[in-house]
Amino acid sequence: MTTDQLILQIKQKKSFLCIGLDVDLDKIPQHLLKEEDPIFAFNKAIIDATHHLCVAYKPNTAFYEAYGIRGWKALEKTIAYLNEKHPEIFTIADAKRGDIGNTSTMYAKAFFEDLAFDSVTVAPYMGKDSVEPFLAFKNKHTILLALTSNKGAFDFQTQEVDGKELYKHVLETSKRWKNSQNLMYVVGATKAEYLAEIRKIIPEAFLLVPGVGAQGGNLQEVCKYGRTANIGLLINSSRGIIYASKNEDFAKAAALNAEALQKEMAAIMSR
Amino acid sequence: MTTDQLILQIKQKKSFLCIGLDVDLDKIPQHLLKEEDPIFAFNKAIIDATHHLCVAYKPNTAFYEAYGIRGWKALEKTIAYLNEKHPEIFTIADAKRGDIGNTSTMYAKAFFEDLAFDSVTVAPYMGKDSVEPFLAFKNKHTILLALTSNKGAFDFQTQEVDGKELYKHVLETSKRWKNSQNLMYVVGATKAEYLAEIRKIIPEAFLLVPGVGAQGGNLQEVCKYGRTANIGLLINSSRGIIYASKNEDFAKAAALNAEALQKEMAAIMSR
Repeated sequence: MTTDQLILQIKQKKSFLCIGLDVDLDKIPQHLLKEEDPIFAFNKAIIDATHHLCVAYKPNTAFYEAYGIRGWKALEKTIAYLNEKHPEIFTIADAKRGDIGNTSTMYAKAFFEDLAFDSVTVAPYMGKDSVEPFLAFKNKHTILLALTSNKGAFDFQTQEVDGKELYKHVLETSKRWKNSQNLMYVVGATKAEYLAEIRKIIPEAFLLVPGVGAQGGNLQEVCKYGRTANIGLLINSSRGIIYASKNEDFAKAAALNAEALQKEMAAIMSR
Repeated sequence: MTTDQLILQIKQKKSFLCIGLDVDLDKIPQHLLKEEDPIFAFNKAIIDATHHLCVAYKPNTAFYEAYGIRGWKALEKTIAYLNEKHPEIFTIADAKRGDIGNTSTMYAKAFFEDLAFDSVTVAPYMGKDSVEPFLAFKNKHTILLALTSNKGAFDFQTQEVDGKELYKHVLETSKRWKNSQNLMYVVGATKAEYLAEIRKIIPEAFLLVPGVGAQGGNLQEVCKYGRTANIGLLINSSRGIIYASKNEDFAKAAALNAEALQKEMAAIMSR
């Protein structure tokens, strides 16, 4: 998918919501456990109920790998279902991968070709030759961890490197990499005040913003500091939407919570 | 596996060799492609021929994920085969994972419980609460990326943070994390001169050292600067061993190359 197609979808749906499909079998409605593939059954119900309210879905691969082959199959079925039924929706493999050159190419093939995701999240620690193999794929997007939403972000990401925080150094350095137009960035919503600084370095790139909802980020603040002319934001909510209810009405409850966020986004976009 | 069991194995085998099982279907002997599971068939042959020469095997998950379900099944079969036939051998999932708290726990379950690896490699960028969930597993080991063997290591890892390189900051900070006795570290062999500095910070911890062989590192130099009383090193070789031949004799050729390294290690240990 091209960035223009993503922007068009945002404008049509008046939404820049991304729904995180982080499926934990202990947290889903227990009546689904009798299904042949409870993970996919849950995802399909959530997608069917919310696809008109969001522009992206983001399965975190950890939740699928934890169930072994069964989990990997559920991930395959989920992305296949999305690509078949809703090809306009932007798909994110939240995998936080990264390895040396030829090995990163294998990861890129796994997510961009075998699973056919539009994008994958990647960790920056190993530098240029660990990220550029992902950037080489046309109309695929590499979402680089910059400033994450957890407490541990302050261990290294905000440490000063030559008088400037490490995450800013990551942003600036990554702009010089080949095919950097295919980069987006993860920036946690728990630190909205950083967004103004970040926009000085990357004024246009899309930001994937986790932490609105369960992690306490504020949508208005994030938009105030992070929004671009094309919105330039994908706001992720996982638990706050998919676990809105543990009863048979879980998909409807998820849609209601997604709609509340979408309406807030539509209001922001109309201003 | 406990660290003491690993040390015992090293002393018995007079080896601290780790063999990287990075299986690329384009590079394995082509007669294996007619097998039902060529990846596992290749791994089994390599393991059968080399298990007495090495103390660890390290499949890099990228090579398995690139083949989807088929690859994940081959990974499952490989680790099951190792745990059944050679339970004394230390197993490393080279996965370079890392995510926020509860999500890292899911990754830890995937590799420590579902697949039953002894250890997993983890990226440090997201800090303490992304790594501690791995450290909570008893007799399991978390191998933290410190200084990698690729060119991109110089993008961020060697940048100065408060007058000290980032990778040193990672080493020092990680020592204060809960259950840090379960930490080992990835340190690239292409920078043997850094090892003396690293040993000042972590005098005892095991180091997983890639880059001997294909990436140009030197075994004698690595041991000179990095060795401890208990060796404290796992030297990885992947391509130099497993792709020693593309013919039917590939396993024998792999064993010869592994034996050459093992003999060099035995000589170092006898000095």
